[in-house]
Amino acid sequence: MTTIQPTEPGTTAAVRELGGSGLAREIRARAAADAAELADSGVTPGLAVVVATDDESSAWYVRSIARAAGKAGIDCRTVDLGAGAEVERIRAALETLSADESVHGIILQTPLPAGAHFEDLASAIDPRKDVDGANPVSLGNLAAGLPAYPPATAAAVLELLDHHEVELAGRNCVVVGRSNVVGKPVAQLLLQRDATITVCHRHTPELTAFTPDADVLVVAVGKPGLITDKHVRDGAIVIDVGTNPTADGGLVGDVDPSVQVAGLTPVPGGVGPVTTALLLQHTVWSATRSVRRLRHAAGAQPRTGSEH
Amino acid sequence: MTTIQPTEPGTTAAVRELGGSGLAREIRARAAADAAELADSGVTPGLAVVVATDDESSAWYVRSIARAAGKAGIDCRTVDLGAGAEVERIRAALETLSADESVHGIILQTPLPAGAHFEDLASAIDPRKDVDGANPVSLGNLAAGLPAYPPATAAAVLELLDHHEVELAGRNCVVVGRSNVVGKPVAQLLLQRDATITVCHRHTPELTAFTPDADVLVVAVGKPGLITDKHVRDGAIVIDVGTNPTADGGLVGDVDPSVQVAGLTPVPGGVGPVTTALLLQHTVWSATRSVRRLRHAAGAQPRTGSEH
Repeated sequence: MTTIQPTEPGTTAAVRELGGSGLAREIRARAAADAAELADSGVTPGLAVVVATDDESSAWYVRSIARAAGKAGIDCRTVDLGAGAEVERIRAALETLSADESVHGIILQTPLPAGAHFEDLASAIDPRKDVDGANPVSLGNLAAGLPAYPPATAAAVLELLDHHEVELAGRNCVVVGRSNVVGKPVAQLLLQRDATITVCHRHTPELTAFTPDADVLVVAVGKPGLITDKHVRDGAIVIDVGTNPTADGGLVGDVDPSVQVAGLTPVPGGVGPVTTALLLQHTVWSATRSVRRLRHAAGAQPRTGSEH
Repeated sequence: MTTIQPTEPGTTAAVRELGGSGLAREIRARAAADAAELADSGVTPGLAVVVATDDESSAWYVRSIARAAGKAGIDCRTVDLGAGAEVERIRAALETLSADESVHGIILQTPLPAGAHFEDLASAIDPRKDVDGANPVSLGNLAAGLPAYPPATAAAVLELLDHHEVELAGRNCVVVGRSNVVGKPVAQLLLQRDATITVCHRHTPELTAFTPDADVLVVAVGKPGLITDKHVRDGAIVIDVGTNPTADGGLVGDVDPSVQVAGLTPVPGGVGPVTTALLLQHTVWSATRSVRRLRHAAGAQPRTGSEH
């Protein structure tokens, strides 16, 4: 584990790559070990991915999740409803999976067909199986400090910061982007960790009015080259959540990789692999909790009503 | 209605009092008119306040709500469980009221007995009756852009800004305080209105690193005199959510009333009366929606499943 702290303004430091692959490997190994333990007691963690798109990069992502899940001993099924699926059919699928005891994690894949509202549909995911924090209930519980799975991408940002031992309490953290799956929950998680948070977005007239003061800058917009040297101070830690496909089939982030900062996550190989690993971890946790609940319900003890 | 905009730095302007009493009167009058209409069709809007404290200022607040509710034609009942009430008893009361068709709004009053967790208990309030946005589901729906009642105090901040025609899109809005009932939901609401938001709190090393840049400053800490001239620029609009009791039985806010800014809400007479008025408005809205649901259920039309 490496130690990187935001440095004072004016300090020149080599840009450190805050990689996620090693961390992702650790998380996957832990998930696999936990899954093996569950398998010993006869339970296979189950993950279901609901797809209603023929978007290619989505299909690529779903395959990569399924592959990683398989390797970790998680049973992953893709429920492909087709690109023209009706809203009510998607909702019904989510409800069926929520009620299915062999499923411990449910992911609603985007994009969705026209007319479908992501958060509205995600309300149909049992919060206990909401391993990608898509149900607004999860966002609310998160904000209220109650147990909930954060969206895996948002959780990955925090895992990376912790892994590289970046201090957050009292730090000035700026988040660029305000999506429900990244920007907003990342801001909530940073706030819970006692950071001062600022959320910028497309209506922010000048990013440079905010981002150069950031100790920690999290960028989740989806615009290659959005963040350049003028946007950052050299002591900053920068987490690049952008994954923008390039013409030659590669991926680039939102941050110009040549920026002079104290630490920067690479794209690919930064937030991405940690996100996938956390989806597996959440699914295994959910399976473990489900087993505990079933045992508890089957056990002799009366319910105390204070299990949480 | 007055028009006040944040002015450019260096502009000297008289401090304008952004009062809430007139706005509160308007909201109450509208709520009373709607309640009267409901009464004509045989429904009296019902508000229930669950109390489990012998705190005096809480009792004063509950009485003021009950009085305002009565005047607006809302049936307000206080369910006083006593300062030593057990958590499960409070939860049961909230569940009973959630199931009670004569109740359209439920408020869980603070402080709560030791060991009780506000958000956890508030989860027992039917979100449709959660007129003070206490259930984490409401916070999550709010953040996700789904219909929900915001906490009345947070809604009051936005109502005041709108009433005084303060532009928010693209503005730099700084919120001091990160409570679940004010700071966090105010930040969410400002973000939805396309403001850039910063949330400061007790771990922010220097408020002066953030607050002097604010076009709109919302202060909700509970510390008299926290914000002084050094914290604000003269063109700022300042909303003071603090209500701190004084030795002589009065109230003061968190902001030194002598600050030189473009606009400042008074305490008392600013956010407070608007908050109470909005609780009544939310209760009447909830009753109206409940009547519509009942009519819809009783009607001849088959359920389409897409009523939202």
